Amino acid sequence: MARRSDARPRMVQAAQQLIRERGYHATAISDVLERSAAPRGSVYFHFPGGKAQLAIEAAEAHAHEQVKYIDQAAESADSAAQLIENYLDLGRDGLVASGYSRGCGIAPLVTEAAHEESAEVEAASRHAFEAMIDRLAFHFVDFGLNRAAARQLADAVIAATEGALVTARALRTPAPFDAVRTILAAHASAAAKPASGRSR
Amino acid sequence: MARRSDARPRMVQAAQQLIRERGYHATAISDVLERSAAPRGSVYFHFPGGKAQLAIEAAEAHAHEQVKYIDQAAESADSAAQLIENYLDLGRDGLVASGYSRGCGIAPLVTEAAHEESAEVEAASRHAFEAMIDRLAFHFVDFGLNRAAARQLADAVIAATEGALVTARALRTPAPFDAVRTILAAHASAAAKPASGRSR
Repeated sequence: MARRSDARPRMVQAAQQLIRERGYHATAISDVLERSAAPRGSVYFHFPGGKAQLAIEAAEAHAHEQVKYIDQAAESADSAAQLIENYLDLGRDGLVASGYSRGCGIAPLVTEAAHEESAEVEAASRHAFEAMIDRLAFHFVDFGLNRAAARQLADAVIAATEGALVTARALRTPAPFDAVRTILAAHASAAAKPASGRSR
Repeated sequence: MARRSDARPRMVQAAQQLIRERGYHATAISDVLERSAAPRGSVYFHFPGGKAQLAIEAAEAHAHEQVKYIDQAAESADSAAQLIENYLDLGRDGLVASGYSRGCGIAPLVTEAAHEESAEVEAASRHAFEAMIDRLAFHFVDFGLNRAAARQLADAVIAATEGALVTARALRTPAPFDAVRTILAAHASAAAKPASGRSR
């Protein structure tokens, strides 16, 4: 039997997986308990805020994971364009490996937002996207983009990744990932070039 | 009192609105009846397949509407880039006008996909996105892009629009729409230029 001290992180991870697979409303606390093999009593011991708290912590865990992926993608890149290629490949490969069954862990909290706990859940999804966009923009500046261009590109990369997770899943093809990868990386290459008066 | 003959389209429209606001699972048939002011008996008379059928027809209605918007965006454009700007402005303005409360009518069927009726609902969301991407690609070819470039750009525009609807809603700013609009329109301008050997 799993140790009691493991129950909390295992429950957050189970909630994250289930939200990615079936969304927020369809994720019941009983499903989280079943997948994490946690004892029933642990729900309100570890998560006095119930399902909303679980969802918020799952969104935080998801954002934390994505920020780590962004750092990894930056570490093995020599340019903003390569960072984008690496990050989108991670998203693409993860979706394909799941048999197109696992989307974003944050988006369902946004698209299923009109519920009672909405203010706190909405704040969690906002902070999660902000963390991802901020970290991407940080790396883009590091690769030579100016702040405004870095922010714009980071907004576009996160939007495009979110959308590709939806349309690629619906269409059961990685084509949307490949399309945004090609276009955004080309844009990043152009944006990173120092201005030159060569042809004038 | 609303005429009985209006009940069917009003119910589809109400289902579409509710799915855009709160997703699939949180949309109860009683909510659809209330918003459409349709009599209870009309559900299984008009929609023997129940909620799944309502959601499928709502997704079809949403895709039909989007294809119409794509045609309008093309009609008032002189280029693929302008089409993209017009279409993204429609999406942006609609989201802002709704107070960031109304997202895509198809995405929730994808992100909440793991339910019993999933095969039919999944097919509906796939067909809906295909219809939008196909129509965009058609117009891009009409504006001078080759078929492969048109398809790639259409995949990217629909993915970016879907994602911007999620992140702009979460962040309560149109910035993601503006970011993908600028980058995709610039790409379209470059892709539409006839190849030239000028600088060789």
